[in-house]
Amino acid sequence: MTVRDLSELGERVRAAARVLGTSSDAQRCDALRAAAARLRDQASVVLTANASDIERARSDGATTTAIDRLTLSDQRLEAMAQGLETVAMLSNPLGERVDSKTLANGLRVERVRVPLGVVGIIYENRPNVTSDAAALCLRAANAAFLRGSSGALASNQAIVSALRFGLAQAGLPEDAISLVEDVSHETAVHFMQLNGVIDCLIPRGGPSLIASMRENATVPYVLDGDGICHVYVDAAANLDMAERIVINAKVQRPGVCNAMESLVLHADIAQELLERLSISMPEVSLLGDERAVALLPSLHAAAEGDFDREFLDLIASVKIVDGLPEAIAFINEHGSGHSEAIVTDDGVAAEMFLAHVDAAAVLHNASTRFVDGGELGLGAEVGISTQKLHARGPMGLEALTSVRWVIRGEGQVRS
Amino acid sequence: MTVRDLSELGERVRAAARVLGTSSDAQRCDALRAAAARLRDQASVVLTANASDIERARSDGATTTAIDRLTLSDQRLEAMAQGLETVAMLSNPLGERVDSKTLANGLRVERVRVPLGVVGIIYENRPNVTSDAAALCLRAANAAFLRGSSGALASNQAIVSALRFGLAQAGLPEDAISLVEDVSHETAVHFMQLNGVIDCLIPRGGPSLIASMRENATVPYVLDGDGICHVYVDAAANLDMAERIVINAKVQRPGVCNAMESLVLHADIAQELLERLSISMPEVSLLGDERAVALLPSLHAAAEGDFDREFLDLIASVKIVDGLPEAIAFINEHGSGHSEAIVTDDGVAAEMFLAHVDAAAVLHNASTRFVDGGELGLGAEVGISTQKLHARGPMGLEALTSVRWVIRGEGQVRS
Repeated sequence: MTVRDLSELGERVRAAARVLGTSSDAQRCDALRAAAARLRDQASVVLTANASDIERARSDGATTTAIDRLTLSDQRLEAMAQGLETVAMLSNPLGERVDSKTLANGLRVERVRVPLGVVGIIYENRPNVTSDAAALCLRAANAAFLRGSSGALASNQAIVSALRFGLAQAGLPEDAISLVEDVSHETAVHFMQLNGVIDCLIPRGGPSLIASMRENATVPYVLDGDGICHVYVDAAANLDMAERIVINAKVQRPGVCNAMESLVLHADIAQELLERLSISMPEVSLLGDERAVALLPSLHAAAEGDFDREFLDLIASVKIVDGLPEAIAFINEHGSGHSEAIVTDDGVAAEMFLAHVDAAAVLHNASTRFVDGGELGLGAEVGISTQKLHARGPMGLEALTSVRWVIRGEGQVRS
Repeated sequence: MTVRDLSELGERVRAAARVLGTSSDAQRCDALRAAAARLRDQASVVLTANASDIERARSDGATTTAIDRLTLSDQRLEAMAQGLETVAMLSNPLGERVDSKTLANGLRVERVRVPLGVVGIIYENRPNVTSDAAALCLRAANAAFLRGSSGALASNQAIVSALRFGLAQAGLPEDAISLVEDVSHETAVHFMQLNGVIDCLIPRGGPSLIASMRENATVPYVLDGDGICHVYVDAAANLDMAERIVINAKVQRPGVCNAMESLVLHADIAQELLERLSISMPEVSLLGDERAVALLPSLHAAAEGDFDREFLDLIASVKIVDGLPEAIAFINEHGSGHSEAIVTDDGVAAEMFLAHVDAAAVLHNASTRFVDGGELGLGAEVGISTQKLHARGPMGLEALTSVRWVIRGEGQVRS
């Protein structure tokens, strides 16, 4: 596929988006349900395609984790099909009148929620992103322009084929869900520069993808960035609760972006909590600052840069502070703007933390693991934004819409 | 100023933004009023600085228009001071609870409107942008990081000095309004790449600035792009109203982005309306497609590309269509997503147009000139966004805020 082919494909996706923009919500839900049925019907086809991707990954020497991410099963396919059906059951995000007023000159002004148009998704190995992201795009009447990784190409093609079948069944243009099948580096960069085609580009992947987006993307985008999440345990914390929250935030699923990477402890409770944690989560390697190591010599010493790392593993850094202001300043310096929690029984300290820590989500007496579209009632998510524009935190259907002005008059002109 | 100096300045602006984020709304309003008073007190200082900018522009051979944009006067300074006071009278945009709910697990979840942090503004000659933009940033508790043009440097320095005086009077950090005083091309590019410092960058300028943003910017940004605005006059239009709206949209202020650049006429009414317009707005040069020229041979023939040009002058292109679908398709192809109007007495046609034309603002029986923050009741605007993310159309205080998640629990962990 040449760069020109990609632009031509983009024009087809754009044309499909215009048709989708005039479709009914019932049609779009029908398409989602028909796609779910097709995915179940075609399970063996999808799994065969997936097996070929897995075989190539194995012969290329991929890690066990990478192969696990790539692997589909009957169970995972059923979860994808159910995901499509769940999105069809959410509330229609479009048409909402965000606000309205009548001006002194009689103009009736309202702001109305509408589709974005073409949403580009550029993502790494997980093939389930193909159906999860396309479903949310479709429900918000956006065309989904998908650029997955080379390693999952056969799987993605099989999934997209089922999704397009659903579109056709509902009388919608198949190009409204399109996959870039040339997965070279060159087309990835060109994809990020399809101005006039892509209205919003969302990357789902690691730091190198994010860096490439910053360097190359010229279309509007929303970054789903790192999660360097902290839990701060205050002097006034209930230590049983703190222990429960810290363990949950670190251990329940260490490889995800809303897991805790850094533990910030008030000096007054640090020793007791560290001693408890060393017993209750022995599988976690704690990397302490000097004060932490002095309190509990069995800790490893944190190296340069450990407080700015997203471990995505059973590792956490530990910082001791003398009070809330130091904790807030530390988190604002080292956090990635994702999710930050305080554990305390002191309501004033909690509100201070919630007001002054600068992140997409701030939590009091709850695990950072709750910062997730499903947990927060969005139904599904297309990613978690760590930037401040457009959408912040978990991005559901609303993040895939735009708001525009509709103005009705009787011949008014400006004087 | 080296690139390193700019980064250091950025760190100071960022630190000031954190302090501003914890200030009270009353303090920020006090700062605006004190800045207005200072601007009046220091009028002669500002005008002297402005005179030196004008003198240099003259000796550099600047056009009359460029010099007019650059020139301040007692009247313009007073308008700037009043602008600061107006922003102090708007509603506080911060703290609004956008939505809230209690989850089944007892977590209380809300989304709250908060400042963006550091807003960068990169702009061309008009010195009034300095105070207008800084005022909106300040009211929304954002630091304003300003990078004006070299041609207005002395004026901008004098204005910023008055604004910083206001900050100091209100006990706020002066660095919360900072001007980049090295106006080389190199620092402009570096400014667009201050990741970790600038949370949102807004350009105010022409096509070359926008192109440079797309190419160079790595920080999040919102584009204030071209306005290739259309007025479509339907077969069912009241021609008196249509004539009034077309004249207003084209002639009232041709050099602004919400002026009409292209007139789309239904064939049934084209000849009559063109004949009327050739009499009622003889100063406007109409560039017609073949059919338009056939109807009124006194029209000029439109050249290749004339339907994609923002003239910003007493010029408009004219396209004849056979019906509403053709008009909508034409506008979606040639518009820049700014403001698009239909004139018709046919309510069904109007709603079809409003629903299917893809632009920041769509209007029925009203002049495109109303698409302006002041006219639409925003109080003031920092620009007009032609992109679909974050803010679309006129950007007021709300566009300078972010929404984040605040989650309160009693020790909940995820299972």
